[in-house]
Amino acid sequence: MEKLYVIKIGGNIIDDENKLSSFLKDFAEVREKKILVHGGGKLATRVAETMGITQQIIDGRRVTDAETLKVAIMVYAGYINKNIVAKLQAQNCNAFGITGADGNAIQAHKRGIASSVGTAGLDYGFVGDIDKVNKTFVQEILEQEIALVIAPITHDKNGLLLNTNADTIAREIAKAMNNLYEVSLFYCFEKNGVLLKETDDGSYIEKINRGTYCELKEKNIVSSGMIPKLDNAFEALQSGVQNVIIGKAENLHNLINHQSGTAIVNE
Amino acid sequence: MEKLYVIKIGGNIIDDENKLSSFLKDFAEVREKKILVHGGGKLATRVAETMGITQQIIDGRRVTDAETLKVAIMVYAGYINKNIVAKLQAQNCNAFGITGADGNAIQAHKRGIASSVGTAGLDYGFVGDIDKVNKTFVQEILEQEIALVIAPITHDKNGLLLNTNADTIAREIAKAMNNLYEVSLFYCFEKNGVLLKETDDGSYIEKINRGTYCELKEKNIVSSGMIPKLDNAFEALQSGVQNVIIGKAENLHNLINHQSGTAIVNE
Repeated sequence: MEKLYVIKIGGNIIDDENKLSSFLKDFAEVREKKILVHGGGKLATRVAETMGITQQIIDGRRVTDAETLKVAIMVYAGYINKNIVAKLQAQNCNAFGITGADGNAIQAHKRGIASSVGTAGLDYGFVGDIDKVNKTFVQEILEQEIALVIAPITHDKNGLLLNTNADTIAREIAKAMNNLYEVSLFYCFEKNGVLLKETDDGSYIEKINRGTYCELKEKNIVSSGMIPKLDNAFEALQSGVQNVIIGKAENLHNLINHQSGTAIVNE
Repeated sequence: MEKLYVIKIGGNIIDDENKLSSFLKDFAEVREKKILVHGGGKLATRVAETMGITQQIIDGRRVTDAETLKVAIMVYAGYINKNIVAKLQAQNCNAFGITGADGNAIQAHKRGIASSVGTAGLDYGFVGDIDKVNKTFVQEILEQEIALVIAPITHDKNGLLLNTNADTIAREIAKAMNNLYEVSLFYCFEKNGVLLKETDDGSYIEKINRGTYCELKEKNIVSSGMIPKLDNAFEALQSGVQNVIIGKAENLHNLINHQSGTAIVNE
């Protein structure tokens, strides 16, 4: 089966013009079929602030109200997505920027109001939980030797656009394409991988299986921000994604060649 | 040859949520292959104002500086384009929103500084003049029975996104697809067509050829805003586009059935 790389990058790369250009140069050089999923970054916050839109944080969670959603669509699907596509075209990498609405690529539903006994319901606002990925459409683009660049925005098929976690999009895309390609999923961030000591970038763990993950959690070694990423990684692995690697965006080629990053493995 | 409709809508429809929804319902019902090219609208101006970005107007012409370009990308390629796509998906019309950078669909160059003898050069800023349309890519999408929704942003293949006139994009797309489909080009705006009396929407002219156009210009009957649209229309016609019609967006089905609007004709 042909290889497909699903690569997720976050704010630390997007916010740094030099790092982004360098990463996109590496990405353009990848010869296999490839999908780039990007997160947000600080620009959305800056635009929202400039427009006088205050971020709502309830119980430590960011709430996407209507105005914040508008900014997310403008910045993620507009500015960031199209700049990445234009930069890839400049590297002779034919690319195509989409949201979940385009080609009905990723359909989602607005997350329900979460509540537990004795607490008031928590409304996340315009946040999407993914229902399905349009494999046929994604494949049609990939088969034209075009790289897909996916913004973290989905839709509900009723006309509503929804803010959606980029890590989850990467996971669901990897899972969906899994029976058509030999899929590798890369979660790129600012560290070398999952670290034993958060302040020591050299202390990254080469392989983590469910057992070691459990131990790391019990010993409070993995940071709270890392847990959802690792949960996503294990879910992808369990669904048959061949390789799942967490590592540094600057090391893309080494991540692909298994010479860097933390590999999430079955055994 | 199969039919292809290239339909351009402007700010008057985009700014009015009800009119836009109604237009998109009509557009979704069109069974033939179709491309929607949209302009900007007032949202970009509002966002720019809210962000404290002042519009530069030099010699009566809007100049796209770096900050204005950023807003144009966010609003046109992000907010407007993705909302149109989501609304079409809700109407069971599979649609795909792009800029010229996506799939290298429309390549352009930054407009040079215009100068005439004795005057200083006029720099339009980040404005693109179109060099070529990627016919193969556009056709690949259309053949999947997906409607293309094009935002008025192109790129220069060197990483630069450029603000580009939507009427011109519609013309160039119509011209480029002309040997693959029987193309009809529709310029939709707020009037019934080209009017004999600007205040009387009933006074629209059914047909205009080059001779009548010349007379209308000499008699100052066509408004100055109408002239570039008519020039675009005649250029498309001359390049072999089958039908070119200027009319009201609300009458889309009638425009298609030649029961409304001003037809631009050879004789």
